[in-house]
Amino acid sequence: MKHYILAIEEALKKLDIPENPSNLYEPLRYFLSIGGKRTRPSLLLIAHKLFDDNWQDSINQALAIELFHNFTLIHDDIMDNAPVRRSMATVHEKWNRDVAILSGDVLLIKAYDYLLEGNKNPVDSMRLFNDTARLICEGQQLDMDFEEREIVELPEYIEMIRLKTAVLLACSLKVGAMNAGAGTSECNKMYELGIKLGLGFQLQDDFLDAFGDPESFGKQVGGDILNNKKTYLSIRLRQEIGEQAYNNLYTLKDTALVDAVKSAIVANGIDAELADLVNNYHQEAIQILDSLDTKKPKDELLGLSSKLMIRQN
Amino acid sequence: MKHYILAIEEALKKLDIPENPSNLYEPLRYFLSIGGKRTRPSLLLIAHKLFDDNWQDSINQALAIELFHNFTLIHDDIMDNAPVRRSMATVHEKWNRDVAILSGDVLLIKAYDYLLEGNKNPVDSMRLFNDTARLICEGQQLDMDFEEREIVELPEYIEMIRLKTAVLLACSLKVGAMNAGAGTSECNKMYELGIKLGLGFQLQDDFLDAFGDPESFGKQVGGDILNNKKTYLSIRLRQEIGEQAYNNLYTLKDTALVDAVKSAIVANGIDAELADLVNNYHQEAIQILDSLDTKKPKDELLGLSSKLMIRQN
Repeated sequence: MKHYILAIEEALKKLDIPENPSNLYEPLRYFLSIGGKRTRPSLLLIAHKLFDDNWQDSINQALAIELFHNFTLIHDDIMDNAPVRRSMATVHEKWNRDVAILSGDVLLIKAYDYLLEGNKNPVDSMRLFNDTARLICEGQQLDMDFEEREIVELPEYIEMIRLKTAVLLACSLKVGAMNAGAGTSECNKMYELGIKLGLGFQLQDDFLDAFGDPESFGKQVGGDILNNKKTYLSIRLRQEIGEQAYNNLYTLKDTALVDAVKSAIVANGIDAELADLVNNYHQEAIQILDSLDTKKPKDELLGLSSKLMIRQN
Repeated sequence: MKHYILAIEEALKKLDIPENPSNLYEPLRYFLSIGGKRTRPSLLLIAHKLFDDNWQDSINQALAIELFHNFTLIHDDIMDNAPVRRSMATVHEKWNRDVAILSGDVLLIKAYDYLLEGNKNPVDSMRLFNDTARLICEGQQLDMDFEEREIVELPEYIEMIRLKTAVLLACSLKVGAMNAGAGTSECNKMYELGIKLGLGFQLQDDFLDAFGDPESFGKQVGGDILNNKKTYLSIRLRQEIGEQAYNNLYTLKDTALVDAVKSAIVANGIDAELADLVNNYHQEAIQILDSLDTKKPKDELLGLSSKLMIRQN
């Protein structure tokens, strides 16, 4: 994994970002430098390597995916009024709302630049990327809509995380496979694999937000509970204990609230249920991986897939 | 002209915009329906017709340009805190900030979809479109930066309007010519023609904002003066009468302020100077048009070019 991330970081450092206007471009340099796990571009490079050794040929498309992901983060942070990301001030917090809107816009445009750069299937990649980007906007809108609603059903929630999170992992894997010259059937399988991976990844995130180790998780543990956010855990808990009991929990505050909700989740076996669900997605991803027609080793994608779903941070 | 606009309006009505999530897509339907002069897509279709009769083949690229333009308007309106556009509530005003950010984002993505649709030079168009989009973001940032500054020099202002306004007209003309199969040299001339047109168009806008007929202009006449906005007129007036006299004018308020500033502009011949400058750009545009190697009539582009620069609304 390390050589992929090194290549991505190296390429990010060499990114062609002008000096001026500094209020437009300085926020991009800042935001891209505060890190991130580079999961999506790594998936893209691993997917390329799964069908062809010259994974370096996909570095610009990997960058495109990472830039796009960061564009969504900058705009999402405005919408969520989030002051902090990766322990650093968000762009709208460090600069202001307008700078964050416009820097995000130009980052999306930059992503399209890199998607085209040295791409042997520019039009197919563009169509996939556009479809993906549109679905992600839909997912973000659903996420915001859900916050305004009292009740969200589980299938709606799963559809929302498919759109908001899973399709970008799927797109990353498919673009990597396309670049490597894989056939249509294998490319489509890579997309499906990415969907399973993305759903498992996001559900694990829901779990870690409540039950993760505060030391290693990086975010405030219990944040979703404190904000009464719709997640797998809260939707299922409300179903299990009923509206009134759920609302009664929310007469508590702060640590008492987090502790009580976590106890109720465990008492109703919802944490175990979530672990089973994540494991199912993991198994489905492995099945797709097994079925892939390639002579290259599959261990890297298997490894990252496992890491993303059984991760503790 | 009318048949181009009819074709654009028809295509806009048939636009493939999903129903749901309605908070994402309803704002787009609303914003695209409140009209606009469709200047940029008309330029694109006219440019196609200048080299090839089948201008209808460029309708999707014309749509792309119009969608992109509307994306910039939705986001600019947030940044400008503008409550009204074309006598109707802006998206962030009618919905909210978050809806306006995300609807704008998805509109930009839609623009890329239509740019690709039935495009014979998808990669060249994409590169031009990306470069143009990036420059427009830079122009918007400079415009915002200028509001924070006491002094803006004229060349800086001209560069800002080149980026914020002219390059999109230039891009429209060039994409139309590219689609029509015009050679590189003619395509580049179309771009240059668009720059002249765009500069003249924006400077005429500066003029009309102060001296336009309130009945036909559509916007509040004197708005730039009331907001002490940096425009050609205000930058030159400040140069002519000096810092202190300029600031003295701004001890006045409302109509008295607008009247005093307009009188000072006229007394210093700055309105006539602006008219000369616009006329120069017009003449340069005509020279480029004359030099174009095409067997098709040039009267439509000449007509629109004249209309945009000597317009009264």
